[in-house]
Amino acid sequence: MDKIPPAAIADLQALLGERVLTAPGALAAYGRDATPLFRHAPDVVVQPLTTEEVAAVMRIATRHRVPVTTRGAGTNLCAATVPLSGGIVLSTTRMTALTEVSREEMLAVCQPGVTAGALNRAAAAVGLIYVPDPGSKEASTVGGNVATCAGGLRGLKYGVTRQYVLGLEAVLPDGEVIRTGGRLVKDVAGYDLTRLLVGSEGTLAVITEITMALVPNPAAARYGVAYFETMAEACEAVRDIVASGPAPATLEFMDAVCIAAVEDFAHLGLHLDAGALLLFGDDGEPDAVDRSVARMAEVCGKRATRIDLAESVAAAEDLLAARRCNLPALARSGSMTILEDVTVPRPKLAEMVAFVAATADKHGVRIGTFGHAGDGNLHPTAVVDGDDPAAAKAAMAAFDEIFRRAVDLGGTITGEHGVGAAKLPYLEHRLGPEQMALLRRIKGAFDPLGLLNPGKLGS
Amino acid sequence: MDKIPPAAIADLQALLGERVLTAPGALAAYGRDATPLFRHAPDVVVQPLTTEEVAAVMRIATRHRVPVTTRGAGTNLCAATVPLSGGIVLSTTRMTALTEVSREEMLAVCQPGVTAGALNRAAAAVGLIYVPDPGSKEASTVGGNVATCAGGLRGLKYGVTRQYVLGLEAVLPDGEVIRTGGRLVKDVAGYDLTRLLVGSEGTLAVITEITMALVPNPAAARYGVAYFETMAEACEAVRDIVASGPAPATLEFMDAVCIAAVEDFAHLGLHLDAGALLLFGDDGEPDAVDRSVARMAEVCGKRATRIDLAESVAAAEDLLAARRCNLPALARSGSMTILEDVTVPRPKLAEMVAFVAATADKHGVRIGTFGHAGDGNLHPTAVVDGDDPAAAKAAMAAFDEIFRRAVDLGGTITGEHGVGAAKLPYLEHRLGPEQMALLRRIKGAFDPLGLLNPGKLGS
Repeated sequence: MDKIPPAAIADLQALLGERVLTAPGALAAYGRDATPLFRHAPDVVVQPLTTEEVAAVMRIATRHRVPVTTRGAGTNLCAATVPLSGGIVLSTTRMTALTEVSREEMLAVCQPGVTAGALNRAAAAVGLIYVPDPGSKEASTVGGNVATCAGGLRGLKYGVTRQYVLGLEAVLPDGEVIRTGGRLVKDVAGYDLTRLLVGSEGTLAVITEITMALVPNPAAARYGVAYFETMAEACEAVRDIVASGPAPATLEFMDAVCIAAVEDFAHLGLHLDAGALLLFGDDGEPDAVDRSVARMAEVCGKRATRIDLAESVAAAEDLLAARRCNLPALARSGSMTILEDVTVPRPKLAEMVAFVAATADKHGVRIGTFGHAGDGNLHPTAVVDGDDPAAAKAAMAAFDEIFRRAVDLGGTITGEHGVGAAKLPYLEHRLGPEQMALLRRIKGAFDPLGLLNPGKLGS
Repeated sequence: MDKIPPAAIADLQALLGERVLTAPGALAAYGRDATPLFRHAPDVVVQPLTTEEVAAVMRIATRHRVPVTTRGAGTNLCAATVPLSGGIVLSTTRMTALTEVSREEMLAVCQPGVTAGALNRAAAAVGLIYVPDPGSKEASTVGGNVATCAGGLRGLKYGVTRQYVLGLEAVLPDGEVIRTGGRLVKDVAGYDLTRLLVGSEGTLAVITEITMALVPNPAAARYGVAYFETMAEACEAVRDIVASGPAPATLEFMDAVCIAAVEDFAHLGLHLDAGALLLFGDDGEPDAVDRSVARMAEVCGKRATRIDLAESVAAAEDLLAARRCNLPALARSGSMTILEDVTVPRPKLAEMVAFVAATADKHGVRIGTFGHAGDGNLHPTAVVDGDDPAAAKAAMAAFDEIFRRAVDLGGTITGEHGVGAAKLPYLEHRLGPEQMALLRRIKGAFDPLGLLNPGKLGS
């Protein structure tokens, strides 16, 4: 990529004034996201406020043939928001209008820069919840959640972002504005462009407004924790819980590496002699929740060494905090963490977990594994010395084997973080050459000049 | 379209033998579906058994440039399976292998010709249910349910087909086979081709295998019926029910025309002096269901003239039968029924229902309205004399106004039946010219020769 033409910068400045950033410090900050090892500064950062401004930015980008990488809060973990070819970073962080929260229609309408946390609080004020629940939910934006089809801790019972997006407004590369879907659950007028844009990681269009279904806040929620000697036993308990009744809201696991790191970090009273723990919980009507949690405790009891039910809200919050702080806890023990995101069918979970541990040993890499056990979604996380190139290389070699094994077990290279630049080399192993070619043709149908987030999905 | 080349027929016969139909009677039968007014015979019907045979059929079609219209049970209501350009009808009705039903993974794997009824029975045998619940569920195929994103009576609580399809195998027009998704709820590796194929009405690829999520069979279900003086009051009750707590499984309404027709047809003891009835129900844990149904009865009680709770399974089945038999009941009073499928946001339901009634009066057409009130999904159904061209013309004029008003109210021209040939003239009013052009480019990415179901979506 050549440097951006000065005329393009001038056009952007005429449009947006001081909401065009060109200072080297700003460019460096927008040249990375939460993914280690990937960075590339853009030539310019723009901060539009409205759909019309986004459309005007895209017309300028098209006229000057400048790449555009859309970015929310930059919490992405697969380098999907790193502008690999430079050009324009289109930051949505000032598009924060929360236009509507309707209890009657159980939906919200917002601009993409609204944070998931802000939407959650606005929903809670009328007795509703915003379902997507990524680890980054305080910081990450609704636009980013949509662009990556974010998952989180509620997937087993509630599903993921794609099923809550009712409608989108989006700007195509040439500046045309489309509106997909609307306010309806049932709408089959045309191809499902809404779902095609969900998870498209900024490679097809720039999402400028989201209509998101909300759900009633459950009347009650309860949690418990079971400790096991091995991850294999925790995985067997997960299988038996799912087989024994309706899907619960929460089934999360952590291995011994994670338990030790979290306890050292947060001092929550976790038991360090266990090989694995399983955090289980459910929400809904109080009596149904009590029955569900009791059933899970009973199923775990066949294999667990210890079971603790959280008898207070504070105790439940401690358990959820333990699960949510795995990444910062692990991060303290090395200068760089590489957080991965493979998913396998639930019956293959024990096999995959064992393979991760053996592969870590083989390559001499410290990997802690936690994740959404109910979904088969593992987050094996390598902790390495970022100043030691050999250590990073060993971690990448281990993950290379882990990605391939996940696919061979009927799983996938990314359950909820996305493809970005980090997983693109593995995508053909997952999809095959015919489907890769089809993705490129679909990309071409939206973005014939290849201006949106080049070097990512559809490239 | 020219007649099919004899060499193409010969190639198909060499491939499939007697599973190639060319008798005029067979061709006439495959020249129509459940939509009135649309018919066009194909040149040949093929009945493949395997993915490999489908791929070979597509290679023959591509080589000879012959259109291919895929068809399941032919219950479609928007002429989506009428082969408007002749050519090949690819019937999936002999692809009936139900490969797997897994309680542990809560999913089924099947060929597209398995009927929804057969899948439901196989799921029930292991304590699960297949969620899509179209009126045609005994006859229609799973492939057809997927190709149209079928809805039905459970949409408000459970959503529609798209959210239960985990993975698809599909054959592209050139005979290449792709596999999208898999067995995982969480999988963001690549654009969401699974959802793009769901609802694509056979215009992008031929679906040859479906991996479908199943859900646990609820422990209990209860139903009741409330009668109102007017449809407006029934709509207000729907609004208040949704606002008062978690979404129930069933909220269906019928107007006075439908009540009279159904009672005359099925003698279920419906009360004929009402202007509207609302069938309400829920499923789940027994005590939660009791509370939910009691809550709905209480909310209805503010406006209803009469409320009956079904106190037995037989009484509940009568209520559901009343709702399901609207179409055959209406059909008895004329030689042709035109069943429509507009959807509006729930707060606009009363306004839309009133507009339908006024428009029917204005055009002198008898229209009964029933539908999925909780989803805002109405099925206004015109009953006309099929031998009177003026009557059909008046009905179409009324529906023209009804479709446009639905869009103007923030709704859509089809909630669950599809676009097909019948709604294609209205699609641009719903989507706008930019999105129509985008649909055509996406169609081109899959089917550059335009062989799959020409004259439908993407045309």
